[in-house]
Order: sequence, then C-alpha cells, then structure tokens
Amino acid sequence: MKHCLAALLLAAPTPLFAQAAELPPPVAVDPRVVALRDAALDDDYAWEITEGLTTEIGQRLAGSPAEARARAWAVAKLFALGFSNVRIESFPVQTGTRGTESAEVVAPFPQALVVNALGGSGLTGPEGVTGEIVAFDSVDALRLAPDSAVRGKIVFVDHHMPANQDGSGYGQFGAPRRQGPTIASKKGAIAIVIRSIGTDHNRTPHTGVMTFSDGAKPIPAGALSIPDAEQLVRILKRGKPVTMRLRLEGTHKMGTSGNVIAEVPGRDLSLPPILVGGHLDSWDLGTGAIDDAAGVAIATAAAKRIMDAGRPLRTIRIVWFGSEEIGLFGGEDYRAKYGKQPHHAMLESDFGADKIYKVDSKLGATRRDEARMIGAALAPLGIVTGSFEEADGSDIGPMLEDGQPGVGLSQDGTRYFDLHHTSNDTLDKIDAAQLRQNVAAWTATLAILSGGIEPEAKPSPPKRR
Amino acid sequence: MKHCLAALLLAAPTPLFAQAAELPPPVAVDPRVVALRDAALDDDYAWEITEGLTTEIGQRLAGSPAEARARAWAVAKLFALGFSNVRIESFPVQTGTRGTESAEVVAPFPQALVVNALGGSGLTGPEGVTGEIVAFDSVDALRLAPDSAVRGKIVFVDHHMPANQDGSGYGQFGAPRRQGPTIASKKGAIAIVIRSIGTDHNRTPHTGVMTFSDGAKPIPAGALSIPDAEQLVRILKRGKPVTMRLRLEGTHKMGTSGNVIAEVPGRDLSLPPILVGGHLDSWDLGTGAIDDAAGVAIATAAAKRIMDAGRPLRTIRIVWFGSEEIGLFGGEDYRAKYGKQPHHAMLESDFGADKIYKVDSKLGATRRDEARMIGAALAPLGIVTGSFEEADGSDIGPMLEDGQPGVGLSQDGTRYFDLHHTSNDTLDKIDAAQLRQNVAAWTATLAILSGGIEPEAKPSPPKRR
Repeated sequence: MKHCLAALLLAAPTPLFAQAAELPPPVAVDPRVVALRDAALDDDYAWEITEGLTTEIGQRLAGSPAEARARAWAVAKLFALGFSNVRIESFPVQTGTRGTESAEVVAPFPQALVVNALGGSGLTGPEGVTGEIVAFDSVDALRLAPDSAVRGKIVFVDHHMPANQDGSGYGQFGAPRRQGPTIASKKGAIAIVIRSIGTDHNRTPHTGVMTFSDGAKPIPAGALSIPDAEQLVRILKRGKPVTMRLRLEGTHKMGTSGNVIAEVPGRDLSLPPILVGGHLDSWDLGTGAIDDAAGVAIATAAAKRIMDAGRPLRTIRIVWFGSEEIGLFGGEDYRAKYGKQPHHAMLESDFGADKIYKVDSKLGATRRDEARMIGAALAPLGIVTGSFEEADGSDIGPMLEDGQPGVGLSQDGTRYFDLHHTSNDTLDKIDAAQLRQNVAAWTATLAILSGGIEPEAKPSPPKRR
Repeated sequence: MKHCLAALLLAAPTPLFAQAAELPPPVAVDPRVVALRDAALDDDYAWEITEGLTTEIGQRLAGSPAEARARAWAVAKLFALGFSNVRIESFPVQTGTRGTESAEVVAPFPQALVVNALGGSGLTGPEGVTGEIVAFDSVDALRLAPDSAVRGKIVFVDHHMPANQDGSGYGQFGAPRRQGPTIASKKGAIAIVIRSIGTDHNRTPHTGVMTFSDGAKPIPAGALSIPDAEQLVRILKRGKPVTMRLRLEGTHKMGTSGNVIAEVPGRDLSLPPILVGGHLDSWDLGTGAIDDAAGVAIATAAAKRIMDAGRPLRTIRIVWFGSEEIGLFGGEDYRAKYGKQPHHAMLESDFGADKIYKVDSKLGATRRDEARMIGAALAPLGIVTGSFEEADGSDIGPMLEDGQPGVGLSQDGTRYFDLHHTSNDTLDKIDAAQLRQNVAAWTATLAILSGGIEPEAKPSPPKRR
C-alpha cells in the first residue's frame, strides 16, 4: 500500500503547488469595509425585524388579510428605520384558506395519518374521497405506470431526499410535489398524497405550491408528514390492499398582495440601484421565520447599517416581495415595472438564517475585481468564494436570467428542509449568532457594491424647549 | 495555579484510593448469563413487537376500540411467540375522543396557536371560550395570585423544564399540567393553557393526564406546543391585553380496558413469579412507540430469550398493562388481584428505548449478592450500579411501595421529553442498537433473577406425512 501511495504522490501535483501556481493577484480589502463587516457581528436590527414580524403578525399567506397586515407592519418598520421612498405596490392574486384536513387509513389497519393540503390542491367536501392506495417510489415510477393501474385510486408518491448543505435535494426530490399531482390527475387518480418534501422526522407536513398543468383536472393533493409516509410504506409492505379516506377542505378566492419597497438614496441618483430583498409572505402553517422573515431582515439590516454609516454612491433599493410562495408573483410584478432598467446588482436572501458558507456572483467579466473584492472581504467570516458566473434567488431569478447582474450569498441548508413550509418554521429555529454572520456578510458585500460611503453631516437633534 | 492544584491533590483522597478501600468482594458472572446477554445484542424480537404494534395498531388510547384491537394483537403475538397462560383481564375505564382543537390569539396580534387538550380537560362547544389571558411563570405564582386576578380569565402557566438524563425535570416542572387546572378552576378561571410539559421545540403539544380535585369544576385545559407558548410569552411582553379564543371539543364516555398477561412457567411453580412489563395503551396523538410499545417489547423479548434457552426455575410473568396513561388503572387492577401474593421481583420498562445507563434495585438486605450479580452482569453494557434501596416503575409503583421487591433499569431520558405524549412519538424515533442494549440488559437481569435455566428436551417436530 505504501508503494501505491508513493506512486500517487509522484503522479499528481500536490494541491498546495496547484493553488500556489494559480493564485490571482492579492486583494486588499478597504479597512472601512472591514470595520462595517465586523461591527455587524453585533447586529440587532435583523433579530428585531425577524422577531417583530413573526410575533406581531405570525403567518402571512399570500393574498390573505395577514399578509396585508404584514405590509402595513413593514411600511411602519421601514419608515421608523429611516429609509426613504417607502411604498406598497399591490397586485391581485388567488388565495385561500385551509379547512379540516385529515388522512385516515380505513383498512387494513385503521388509523389517522397527519396530512396538509399542498398549495393549489383540489378540495374535498366534508365526506372526503375514499379509495385504494397505489404507491410509487418516485415520479418516474408513476409516469411509467399504465393509466389502468392508477385510475380511480389515490396515488402515493415516495422519495429519498437527502439533507445537503447546498439544498440540492430539493430540485430532484421535489418532483412528487411539483409534477406528481398533474401526472396522477391525467392518469385518472382521484387524489394524491406524497411524502412531504423535507428531511426531518416530525409529524409536521411540508406544504408548498404546485399547479395542475397540461389541462389536468384539479384533484385533492396532500403532503403526509415524513413519519406518516414511512408508516404508510410499512402498512403497504404487509401486502394487503390499503384504503384511505382523504379530507382536504378549504376555500379558494381572489385577494390582494403586494411588494413593499424602500430605499437608501445614493449620492448619484443617475447610477443603477442595487436591489436587496427577500419575501414578506409565508406559508400559513408556521410563522415564516426562516422563510422568509430572516431574509427580509438580513437584507434590511445590512442596508440600514450602510445608511447609518453615511451616504452610498449608489442607491440601495430594499424589496420585501409579496406572494413568492405561491408563484413568485412579487418578483414578476417588480420585473414588469423595473426589470428592464439597469441594476448594479441584485441580491436575495431566501434560504433560512444559518451561516453563509459560499459567495457566488455574476457581475460580468469587466467587474471581476469587484467580485474578487467581495470574496476577500467575506473570507474571514468562513465564506468560500465560488463561481464568478452564477447567482440565484427566487423572486430575482427571472431577472438574473434576463441578464441582470447578481451576487449569491449561499446559506448552509443542512437543516433548512427540516423546517421548510412546515408549522415548525418559527422564531425559536433562528440562531442569533448565525443570523449576525449573515448580516455581516451582507453589509460587507453592500459596502463594496455601493461604490463607497461618505459620512454625512447629520441634522442636529432638535433643541430642548 | 500549579501550587493551588498541588494543594488540592494533597488535601483530598484521590478517587482511585477511595474506591480501592471500599471495593466489595469480586463477583463472577455465570458464563451462561454472559452468553445470553451478548446474544441479545442481536435481538430482533423487540423491534418486531415495537414495529408491529405501532404499524398495525398505531395509537391505542385507553378504553378505545384501538386499545381493544391492541389487546387482540398482543394475545395473538404472545401466543405465536410460544408463551403460556396468555389471557386478557378486562376492567372498565372512562375514555373519550378528541374533537376540533384550536387556540387563537384574537387581539392584539391575531394568529392561530397550536394546542391539544389535556386528558381529563373540560370541553367547549364549537363556539369555544374567549377571554383575556392572565399569565404565570409557575404554578406557585398562580397559587399566590388573588382570585380576583384570575376570575373570568384564561390562565396561562409557563415553566422551565430542563432535559435531564434521569428525567427529573418532569416531577417538578410537570406541576402546570397536574395541579394547574384545579388551581385555576378554583380561582374562577374560565380555562387554562399551559406550556407543554416537554423539552423540544416542535409544534407538537404534549398531552397527559390531569384530574380536577378538591371539588374543582372542570374547565377546558389545553397544552400549547413549546414554540407556541414562547410566542404567547413574546406577545404578552408587548404589554397589551391579550385575548384568546380556545376551542377544545370532544366527547367523554365509558369504555373497556384490560391487561394482557402471559407466562414462561418455571420449573418450580410454587416459587414467587418475576413480573416483567410495560404498558400497552398510549396517548392518542402518536403511535406510542417510545411510550410504551418499546417497553412491552423489551420486557417480552427478554422473557422470550430466556424461554428459548430452556426452563427457568421461577415463573416469568409478562404483563402488558392497560390504561396506564389515564391513571395507572392496569397496575391497580393487577394489584387488586395479585398484589398481595409474593413476587420474586417486579420490573417495568416505561421510559423510551434509549440505552440503559443505571441499574437500581430493592431486593432486600438478604439478597444483596443477587443485586450485585445483576450489577456485575450489566457493567459491560455501560450500565452503572446505583442504589440497592430503590426501584421504580409506573404501573408497579404502588406495589413496590407496598413492599414488593423490584429492579429498576433506568433508560437515558435526555430526549424522552422531546417526544413524550406528542404526535412525534413514532417508530422512527427508536434507535435499534439502543433498543437491543435494553434487551441485553433485561435478558441478563432476568437470567439471574430466574434462578437458573435448564435446557429442556424440546418436543420433536411433527413427522411429515
């Protein structure tokens, strides 16, 4: 074995040499950026926003009265923090309310399972729908099944999503939720239940949006909690026909949503602004602490810290998007109004509040120094520099696709899908120290993107009478 | 610092010397006990029972049809395993069914909180009860409050239970559930909600039994999940009056419960039997995997392993108690019928399925060698020998108080109260390796208590025709 190892050591350049040969020119980070970054490790703004929004509003489903209260709360908060041009830009959306929801194994082993409807599910009456379960281990297995195996039955789709740091399980293993209902409906299923798209073992189902496409007739579509999905698999393994009664009551109706926007005006208003944001709406089961009170809080806290330091060269525009969860409608509204205007960069925080571990950017070849400067400023926070050709975000995603420049500050998603879209998305899941690391990374990034901050002569405090 | 340390070392006898001076005579463990113990580390019986009961029955509330199905399941299983004298001993209990349950903050920040009724709660109609919240940090604070501060209001009682290995938080910090409702009722409260008696941060309330005593009128009594209790505390901290609407619907009625009993007959039927058990009933929210499918499974697997090895000197009597959760009624029924008869020892497993870390016993001064032998046999499993004057158990507790001898195999309870009495008490929480360590400890203990196992000439298998 020693012989083989020696051969390997001789054959391959050592990583140390490889890195040394490729090291780009050194980057000196402006001490003012360093100071702003390190001061942000004591930030309280982000906690105050996260705590306030989740406590005083709680859940804020897109288009609901709660989301409207959240917009009013946001306007008051952004105004109190001293931002300029605070406003709401409204748009209509389809919304609804959740009713009684239950999933009951009728035979062979009578028992209740925990279920929640997916967003966009068909509804049942109080009688529910009752049928035999036909189970599939993946959406592909469902697609390959003959219609005759599915017709008149309740489809169950399982999956095997891992808890990856980069959240990469969600794309592939989210198919049961995104595509499952349409496929099941087109094959004649009377309903569908899926294993929740998540990585925990709590009796807290993960809801989330799906739409019936290709002319598929809406059918009731529910997510079992992961322990319940595993229970159903065990019951099915006994080899007897399994009958389920599924009740997903509720209402669908039109409502109003909107984006809340505020600004830190730049010294040169003719320059393209920097867009920073997150989304204000949440699912209705939790209080939307990680999804996405923390996101709007991080973006806003960083902008506030820049504003407190003086006046940036470029305008920073804060957007708390509405109706992200049900179809990125806030992003679409912003894009329709402002998407064609140049932006210096777009950044969105929408992946919880755990530490940022990687920064990607897509600022273009001519701005590589700016991108490298951001990487150098974030390295002391334990953040690795990733790609210079990528950035992402939910609401801003389509605009990044359009060619807008962006920076992506990737949060550690290892436990994100334990909580995502469940009732467990509550304030107690936020780690204050990691939240502050986010604010520090965002503040440093904004300080660089802003083009430099000039201290302002503050107006004197009013004299005592 | 070195000087101080040296002084300390000189001042105190080292633990090594202290132990050496007190070491009792050495104990040689019978190699047959060692062999049975170590073989049990590959046990499958306990998993099969735990998996089967939780999958094929699920929840089994005392007095419910599900508990009756569980008794039938238990009889079939115990018979199939080859035990003798398998029987059900029935008794009547008060039972009920859970209806719609909700807790809604009406003002100042409208939002839904997650609540479940406690066992024995008063019920509301669909309109619920609405009132102002009056909050207390402990039952003592509630007791000290003037009636006028409580009358006509909904009481909220908080607590600060830690997650201790020995579960010791449950006694002191369980007072809000056990005593809170009676005290609140007698002071004129219209309802009570408590912070769930638990140590997790999931939106899964902990139910549990309580009774209205001292002539207190039943009032609705609910447990908020811990994140919801913390949310209510944050809302209250804003200093505005908080109004809640509480809906706890359901039914109360009489039902049948019962103990399931089976035996491994001893070689000498005139000797007192060894009672081993756990409880068959569970709360209605989870599938009762840790509470207490695992308990009956561990006790039964150990008895089965002894039976497979031959015939013990003393009879081993297995009891799967009914209606433990709602008031130890199975233990009471057994005690009324058999409690005055001498038993060689009583053992109950009712604290989950995590590893056993300590063995206590109360076998009497004349049986110290037997107690020390048990300690020596369990030490290689990482189990410390505790007291020779103590043993406990839920159903067997009153009989131990009466003077019956017992052995207590204490499980690690660090995460027990994350799950206890919640919907999260499901099979996925059982660690198969730790479950097997339990079976190994029980098997070794039973092998010693049984007085020796003689291999039997097994009846020949029937000849093929």
